[in-house]
Amino acid sequence: MNKQLLLSCFALLWATLASQAQNVSQYVNPLIGTKGMGHTFPGACVPHGLVQLSPDTDTIPHNVDGVYQPDAYRYCAGYQYDDPTIVGFSHTHMNGTGHSDLGDILLMPTTGAIQLNPGTAQVPSTGYRSAYDHASETARPGYYTAYLKDYGVRAELTATPRVGVHRYTYPKGEGNLIVDLNHGIYNYQGKTLWSSLRVENDTLLTGCRITNGWARFNQTYFAISLSKPIVRYGGKEVGNQSVYKGFWRKFDQEHNFPEMGGRGLCTYFVFDCSDGQPLEVHVALSAVSTKGALKNLRAEASGHSFDQLRQEAERQWENALSVIQAKGDADILGSFYTSLYHTFINPSVYMDVDGRYRGIDGNVHRAGEFTNYTVFSLWDTFRALHPLFNLIDPNKSHDMLASLLAHYGQSVHKALPVWSHMGNENWCMIGFHGVSLLADGIAKGTISNPKALQAMVSSSNVPYYDGIASYKRLGYVPLEENASAASITLEYAYDDWTIYRTAKLLGDTATAHAYKQRATSYRNVFKPGLGYACARLADGNWKTDFNLYDTSGQGFVEGNSLNYSYFVPHDVKGLIDLMGGDRQFIRRLDKLFTDTLPPSAYAHTEDVTAEGILGSYVHGNEPSHHIAYLYMWTSQPWKTAERIRQIFDHMYRNRIDGLCGNDDCGQMSAWYVFSALGFYPVCPGTSQYVLGAPALQEATLQLAGGKTLRIETEGLSKENKYVKAVYLNGKPYRKAYLTHEDLMAGGTLRFIMSAKPNKRAYADRDKPYSMSNE
Amino acid sequence: MNKQLLLSCFALLWATLASQAQNVSQYVNPLIGTKGMGHTFPGACVPHGLVQLSPDTDTIPHNVDGVYQPDAYRYCAGYQYDDPTIVGFSHTHMNGTGHSDLGDILLMPTTGAIQLNPGTAQVPSTGYRSAYDHASETARPGYYTAYLKDYGVRAELTATPRVGVHRYTYPKGEGNLIVDLNHGIYNYQGKTLWSSLRVENDTLLTGCRITNGWARFNQTYFAISLSKPIVRYGGKEVGNQSVYKGFWRKFDQEHNFPEMGGRGLCTYFVFDCSDGQPLEVHVALSAVSTKGALKNLRAEASGHSFDQLRQEAERQWENALSVIQAKGDADILGSFYTSLYHTFINPSVYMDVDGRYRGIDGNVHRAGEFTNYTVFSLWDTFRALHPLFNLIDPNKSHDMLASLLAHYGQSVHKALPVWSHMGNENWCMIGFHGVSLLADGIAKGTISNPKALQAMVSSSNVPYYDGIASYKRLGYVPLEENASAASITLEYAYDDWTIYRTAKLLGDTATAHAYKQRATSYRNVFKPGLGYACARLADGNWKTDFNLYDTSGQGFVEGNSLNYSYFVPHDVKGLIDLMGGDRQFIRRLDKLFTDTLPPSAYAHTEDVTAEGILGSYVHGNEPSHHIAYLYMWTSQPWKTAERIRQIFDHMYRNRIDGLCGNDDCGQMSAWYVFSALGFYPVCPGTSQYVLGAPALQEATLQLAGGKTLRIETEGLSKENKYVKAVYLNGKPYRKAYLTHEDLMAGGTLRFIMSAKPNKRAYADRDKPYSMSNE
Repeated sequence: MNKQLLLSCFALLWATLASQAQNVSQYVNPLIGTKGMGHTFPGACVPHGLVQLSPDTDTIPHNVDGVYQPDAYRYCAGYQYDDPTIVGFSHTHMNGTGHSDLGDILLMPTTGAIQLNPGTAQVPSTGYRSAYDHASETARPGYYTAYLKDYGVRAELTATPRVGVHRYTYPKGEGNLIVDLNHGIYNYQGKTLWSSLRVENDTLLTGCRITNGWARFNQTYFAISLSKPIVRYGGKEVGNQSVYKGFWRKFDQEHNFPEMGGRGLCTYFVFDCSDGQPLEVHVALSAVSTKGALKNLRAEASGHSFDQLRQEAERQWENALSVIQAKGDADILGSFYTSLYHTFINPSVYMDVDGRYRGIDGNVHRAGEFTNYTVFSLWDTFRALHPLFNLIDPNKSHDMLASLLAHYGQSVHKALPVWSHMGNENWCMIGFHGVSLLADGIAKGTISNPKALQAMVSSSNVPYYDGIASYKRLGYVPLEENASAASITLEYAYDDWTIYRTAKLLGDTATAHAYKQRATSYRNVFKPGLGYACARLADGNWKTDFNLYDTSGQGFVEGNSLNYSYFVPHDVKGLIDLMGGDRQFIRRLDKLFTDTLPPSAYAHTEDVTAEGILGSYVHGNEPSHHIAYLYMWTSQPWKTAERIRQIFDHMYRNRIDGLCGNDDCGQMSAWYVFSALGFYPVCPGTSQYVLGAPALQEATLQLAGGKTLRIETEGLSKENKYVKAVYLNGKPYRKAYLTHEDLMAGGTLRFIMSAKPNKRAYADRDKPYSMSNE
Repeated sequence: MNKQLLLSCFALLWATLASQAQNVSQYVNPLIGTKGMGHTFPGACVPHGLVQLSPDTDTIPHNVDGVYQPDAYRYCAGYQYDDPTIVGFSHTHMNGTGHSDLGDILLMPTTGAIQLNPGTAQVPSTGYRSAYDHASETARPGYYTAYLKDYGVRAELTATPRVGVHRYTYPKGEGNLIVDLNHGIYNYQGKTLWSSLRVENDTLLTGCRITNGWARFNQTYFAISLSKPIVRYGGKEVGNQSVYKGFWRKFDQEHNFPEMGGRGLCTYFVFDCSDGQPLEVHVALSAVSTKGALKNLRAEASGHSFDQLRQEAERQWENALSVIQAKGDADILGSFYTSLYHTFINPSVYMDVDGRYRGIDGNVHRAGEFTNYTVFSLWDTFRALHPLFNLIDPNKSHDMLASLLAHYGQSVHKALPVWSHMGNENWCMIGFHGVSLLADGIAKGTISNPKALQAMVSSSNVPYYDGIASYKRLGYVPLEENASAASITLEYAYDDWTIYRTAKLLGDTATAHAYKQRATSYRNVFKPGLGYACARLADGNWKTDFNLYDTSGQGFVEGNSLNYSYFVPHDVKGLIDLMGGDRQFIRRLDKLFTDTLPPSAYAHTEDVTAEGILGSYVHGNEPSHHIAYLYMWTSQPWKTAERIRQIFDHMYRNRIDGLCGNDDCGQMSAWYVFSALGFYPVCPGTSQYVLGAPALQEATLQLAGGKTLRIETEGLSKENKYVKAVYLNGKPYRKAYLTHEDLMAGGTLRFIMSAKPNKRAYADRDKPYSMSNE
C-alpha cells in the first residue's frame, strides 16, 4: 500500500466515522433542574409533545383559604428531587415555569386496599402515594422508571406526542390502578370545575378534567386503553363535592358504575396480575373532545407495545438532539445536551392528529397548514429560545409563529399571545413579545405571512393592556398605574422597535416611522444624573426614595433597576450614552458582575435568588440574559468572554441541582445552547448573533436544506477562554457578530482561543447593531 | 236563478268558508298553568324551539346549605302568576316539569344605577328586578310583553327555534341591559361551574354558561347581537367566586374589559336611547360552541326586525296548531288549543342549524338525516304525547325517535334515554319507556330503523339500573332494593310487553317469546287476596303494614297502590282477573272516582295534590292517565264517558290556574287533546285508540299525505255526554277502539251523543287489546 493510498484510506475512514453520528441522548440528564429552582420535570415526553408524563412528588397550592403556602413555588413541575414519595404520574407539565398549573390525569399503580386520596409525604400510608428512592429511578429522554416501594411495583413511562404510555409490573396477584381526576399541580378545592370518566368497555376509558387555574378554563379530554381487562372498579368525588346529585343517587356510583362524574373525581380499577404480565396503559389527551383523544390514541399508540413506543420516543429524541453534534468534556456535554433537551419540551403540540384544536376563543378550529402549539412563555422565550428554533428548525419555528397568528385571529383583544397556555391566555408577565418572535421570524425568512405586521401593530395598541394607553400618550408607563411601570416601558420600547424593524423591512414607511419613534421610549425612564432606569410618575416626576437594588416596589418586576436598566437590546449605543459613555458603562458592568447584591434586595421575588446571582448580576431571571454580551459594544469587548465563562461555570452545572433558576420553558437552556456555541441573539429582530466565547470543543449544526455549520475551536481550555480570532470558511472574520445569513449558508466557523485577550483583534471588530446608528 | 243554481252557490260558498281555516292561535292562552301547579311558562317560543324565552319571577333552590326550601317546587318554570316582580327574561325553560333547571342567559332592561344582583321580591329596589302587573302583560303563542314599572321599560319577546328576540323600549336617555350568567332556575352557589362573555365588537357578544344541576354538565353557548352600539359595559362575579384570579388581575375586568369570565358572572351594557328607538336584541343559543351560536344567529335572525320575527313565530304557531281545526264552545276551545300549544313545546330542538349537536357522550355529533331533539320526559310523555305526534306529525315523531336512537348509540350504558335533558341524562323517574316510543313508532309505521329492537332489548337489560337484575331473576323488583319497587315492576312489565310486541311484529320469535314472559311480571306484585299491587321483599314475602292510599313508603312513586295498580295497559283483561273479575273491577273503579282520598295519603308527594284529585283518582300525576278508559274493557263501558267528562270539567279549565298538576312536558295536555277528540292511546305499542267521548263539537285533523280526518258530533252538550253510536265514513263502527289505520286513512268519524248511555250499543263493541287474549 503506497502512502497515497494509505492517506486515502485514512480519509475514508475518518469520513465514515464522522458521518456516523454519536448517540447524543446519552448526555442528557432529565433530572437536572429537579432539585432546587430549575422546576424541570424528570418524566417522559417526546420533543414538543402535548403529553409530558412525569412523577409528581407533591402539589401544593399557593393559597389555601387566604393562607399563603410558602412551599408551593417548589412544585411548579410537580417533582422535587429530595421528596421521599411519589404521588403518581400525571400527563401534563411545564418545563421550568415560575408559576404552577396542570398535572392533569394522574395514574398510580397500587396493591392492597383501595385508597382514593394521595395521603401525605410524612405518612405515605395514609394515601395511595408510595415511597421510592433514586437508586431505582432512571430518567432518560423519552423514558422514566421508578420502583414504588410501598407496593412492589415497577413503574415505567414513555410517551408519544399525544399519548402517555405506562407499564406497571405488579407483584403477582391483584393490581390496582388509581386514576385521580382531582389531582393537579397547584390544586385546591374548587380548581377542578368538572371531571368525568366513562368505562366504555373493560379495556377502554374516556373522560375529562376541566379546571379553573392559571389556565382560566382548561379542558383536558382523555381516552385510556388498558392491556388487561378490568376486574372491578369504582370512584367518588374526593375533592369538591357537587352541590346537586339529583337522580344519579339511584345508582351505586361508587362501584362498577360506568358513567362517573363530579367536581373532583378519584377512581380506581382492579386487574388480575396473577400471570405476572405487566399492565400497559395508553393515555391519550385532547383539548377538543374524548372523540379527539380516541383518534389520537389510535393514531399514535394502538397496536404498539411499550417497548416499541419507548424505542420510537428515544429515536425521536436522538433525532432532535443530533441537530447539533457536539464535542467537549463530559460535563460540558451533559450541560449542553440537557439544555438542548430542555429547549425541545415547550412549546407543546396543541392539536389532535386530525388538525383540530381548541382556540383562545373556546371554539374548535382546524389548523390545516400548520401544527398548532401552546405553552408560549413569551416574556422568557422571545430572547433566545425562539431565535434558536429559527436557526436549527425553521419549519417548527414557522408553525409556532403560525400558532401565534392563529391566536391573534381568535383573540377578542386582537392581540398576539402574552403567555399561551393550553388554549388559554394567562397574561403572565409583561410586554407583548409575540411581536419579537414575528419580527425575528420575518427578518430570518422563517415566515412571510402578510398579516403579521397588522397583528404586531394591533398587539401594541390594546389600550387597556398594562398601561399602553398612557405609554402612547406620555412615552412611558406611569408608576401610579402599574407597579412594573419602568420594566414595562423598557420592554415596550424594544417591542415597538421590532415593529419598526419589520415595517421597514416590508416597506411600510409610515408604520416604520411611527414605531421608530416609539422605540426610543426607553429614554423616558432613564433618570438624568442617575443614568439608570427609574420609575416615573404621570406628572413627569421621578419616583422618590428610589432603590436601585430592590426587586420590589420600585417599578420593576422580577429584577431590579441595576439589572433591568440594561434592557435596551435594540439600541445599546443609546443605552451607553444614557449611562455616561463607554468608560462609565464598562465600569458599571464590571461592578454589576462583582459587587455583592444584598439578599434583602431580592427577598420578595421568587425568581431572583442567591443561586442565580453573580455579584449583583442576576442570571436566574431573564431580563439580564443579554447583559454579558453588552461588552461587545464597548471598548473592552473581551470581557464578554470572561463573564460568559463565569456564567457557564456557576449557573449551568451537570448535576441535579445544576440550574440556577427556573428553566422558564427553555429560555435558561437556550441561553446556554447559544452561548456554548459561541454567539447569542442579543436583539431578536436583527439577523445578528453577537459573538461570545464557545464552551464546546466542536459542534456541527444540521441546517435547513441539508447544509451544515461546523464550529471548531482551537486551544479551548479552562484558561483559554478568550477568542483571539475567528475564521469563517477559512477567512478571518472581522465583525463582533455573525449574521443569520452567515450561519445558514453553512460552512466552518473557527474560534482561536487564548488565555489572554487579543485586545486589538477585539477592538477591530464591527460593533453589533444599535438603532442609534441607523 | 233556479233552485239548482242557488243550491250550487250555497255549496260553493260553504266549501270556500270551510277551506278558509280559522285563526286557532287566538284560543291559546300561554298563561294557563302559570298559577299553581301547572309549571308552564308564559314566554315566547316557536314549536319545539330550543329557545323558550320567558320571564322569571323568582328562582329558588330546593336545598341551601342542607336546608330544604319549601317554595322551590313552585318555580320549576321560573314564573308564578301571583308574583309581583319580574327578575328578567331567560332563554331556556321546560314546560310543566316537576323538577327544576335551566333559566339560562337572563336579560333584563333597566335604567339608572347599575345593579348586578336580582334583589328580592319583597324589596325589588335592592336589585335589578322590576315590579309589573298583569294589566300590561300579554302572552300569545310566539309573543310576550310586560311593562317594567320600576324602569318605565316596555319589554317584548319573540323567538326563532334557536334565537331569543327581545325588544326593549326605554324612556329617552340611557338604557341598561343586564346579562346575568349567574342567574338560573334552581340556582345555588356552585351550580354555575363557569361563565364567560366576550365583547366581540360594539354590537356583538359571545359567551357561555356551564352548569351542574339537574342536567349534570350543561353547556349553553350564546351569541348576542344588539341593534344599538354599546356605550360602556362591565361585569363581575356575583355568585361563586373563582378561587384563582391570577394575572387577570392586571386588568380592570369590571369595566369595558371584553373577555369576562368567572363562575357566576353578571354583566351590564349601557346604550344611548335618547333617540326613542327601542333596543332589539337577538340571543342565539348553541350547545356546541359560540361559533355554532353565531351560525344560528345569522341563519335565523340576522337582518330581520322584531316585528318580522314575531310574525314568523306567530305564523309557525298558527301553522302547527291548525293541524287540528276544532269547533266548540269558547272555553273548550281555550282548553283544547292551549293544550295543543303545550304539546308543541317539548321536546326541543337540540342541534345547530348546521346539524351539529352535543351528544350524551359529551362529543359533538352531526345529525345528518334527522333533527335532533332533547327534553324527553319519557315517564310522562310515552303515554299520550308521543302517540299524538305519531298521529298528527309522523315526520317530527320520526326525528324524535331517531334522537332516542342516537342517544342510545352514544350511551355508555347502551340504553335509550330515561329523561333526555340538554345533552344529559337526568335519570328522573322510573322505567325505560324509550322502548314504548319505539314500539309505538314501529307499530304505526313512523320509524323502521333496524337497530331499534336491539336498542330496546339492550335498554331492558342494564343490570345496575333500578333493580333490573333482580327483576329478571325474581320476576319483580324487591322492596329492599328500591323504594319504588312495585311501581317499577308494573312499568317494566309494560315496557317488556312493548319489546315482545315489536319483536313479534319484526318476526324475531325468540325475543318475542322471552319478552312475552317478562311482560307478565306485573302479576308477581299483585298480592293474592288483596288484588292490588303491593311491594314485595326479596324472599317472596309481601310488605307488611301495607297502605293502599299512601303515596310514600309503600313501594310506589308519585302515586299510591290504589291508583298505580291499574298500570297494566297491555293486559287489562289479566288485570281485571287479578282484581277479581268484571264486577269487582267496576266496583273498584267506581269507588276510586268517588271515595275521598285523605290528604295525609299524599302529604309527602309534590305531584299529587288536592287540585288533581277526583275522589281518590289522581289525574295530577301520570300513572292514572289511562284509568278512565279501562271501563271500556268491562261490562259497563259507558262509564268511561262519565269519568272523562268529570276530568274535562275539573282538571282542565280555561283559566290561569286551569291545570290540575304539572303539565309534564305536554303529557297532561296530550291527554286532553286526545280525549277531547274522543279517543285515547291506552296502550302505546298497539295501534289502538280506545274510544272515550269527545269534548269538541267538531274537529278536522290534517294527516300525512294530504288526508284529513273529520270528527263530527251530533247532539254533544252538557247533558249528552254518552256516545250512543259511532260512524266511520258513514258506516256504523262496532269496536270499542279505533285503529291507527282507521284514522290515518282519513275520512269522517261521527259520534252520536246521548244523555243516557246506550248500554247495548256499548256492550256490543269489540273490546280493546289485552295480552291475555292473544
